[in-house]
Amino acid sequence: MNFFGINALESLINNLSHLPGIGKKTAQRLAIFILKSDAQFAEELADTIIKLKHETQLCQRCFNISEGPLCHICKDEHRDASKICLVEDIVDILAIESSHEFNGRYHVLGGVISPLSGVMPEDLHIRELVDRVTNENLKEILMAINPSTEGEATMIYISKLLKNNNVLITQLASGVPIGSNLEFIDPATIGRAILTRRKL
Amino acid sequence: MNFFGINALESLINNLSHLPGIGKKTAQRLAIFILKSDAQFAEELADTIIKLKHETQLCQRCFNISEGPLCHICKDEHRDASKICLVEDIVDILAIESSHEFNGRYHVLGGVISPLSGVMPEDLHIRELVDRVTNENLKEILMAINPSTEGEATMIYISKLLKNNNVLITQLASGVPIGSNLEFIDPATIGRAILTRRKL
Repeated sequence: MNFFGINALESLINNLSHLPGIGKKTAQRLAIFILKSDAQFAEELADTIIKLKHETQLCQRCFNISEGPLCHICKDEHRDASKICLVEDIVDILAIESSHEFNGRYHVLGGVISPLSGVMPEDLHIRELVDRVTNENLKEILMAINPSTEGEATMIYISKLLKNNNVLITQLASGVPIGSNLEFIDPATIGRAILTRRKL
Repeated sequence: MNFFGINALESLINNLSHLPGIGKKTAQRLAIFILKSDAQFAEELADTIIKLKHETQLCQRCFNISEGPLCHICKDEHRDASKICLVEDIVDILAIESSHEFNGRYHVLGGVISPLSGVMPEDLHIRELVDRVTNENLKEILMAINPSTEGEATMIYISKLLKNNNVLITQLASGVPIGSNLEFIDPATIGRAILTRRKL
């Protein structure tokens, strides 16, 4: 499409459409919004993008977002250092933290194994996880990977890799979400909930 | 929600969520993507945001995006200066232009009249349109406002305002989109297409 031959507009639309979930049409709408907003908003937006890159980094131990070499969870002495929760992505840490049910540390995998998308084990932080199991005297690894086909395969791969270490490997329970309506739950989830049913 | 208490992350999420159609969750996902992308991408994104504001402005005549006081359509001597296409937003110009069926100039209204959302006639570029009708010796105004309830009301308001001027006021035909399937078209559109049916 021709954006009136205006280079500045075309470049911004092009850059915005590299963001996840943002297509050409959405990028166009966002760019026009920025164009029409006051200069202060645009400057603040640009400024915070640069600041995020300059003021933060990934935690050297767990690959969480951090303002220093270690993130605030790894530095927190009140957390149980013998437990690690393994997650796909940084945003999953927020989800687990908001449940207030886990008091250990984390390890961000950076994705799941997916040969079709070209993601192999060596592209993820699996080697670093094995190193932590060797060096940190861990008791439990709770796998909180999203329960997709590839997520399940990744959990099986990692649990096989670690099976000779003396560490308990657990995974989040699958089943019917609290407050949900059976009518709207997919058959695979219902099936899993029946197979793993508990005694009342 | 607590974004690990990292100010740079919180500010960016806050700024991104001011963009249209971007909620807190999406803003969070975009911010984490920017965090993990290389520094060059973040710098280019920030740079193009600033450049868009510095290198473009709104056309003084029609409020289209422009690199100078007049946009490339207003400056184009091959366009028919006696016809104006009235649109809600700048992106609508792209849609009309891509049809290659209109060779006049444009006028961007900047929205539609919507008392419930606090948008009154004086918030739109209606006065400037009336001035153009007075000064530019126009023959036709084609109203290409989106056919919502508020859009229709806005078209009626403007056509009443201009009725004593010697200018032909037209509006885009409403009806069944080309290539569509009657089964999936809403009743209001079908009804309008029946009422405005043409002889074959």
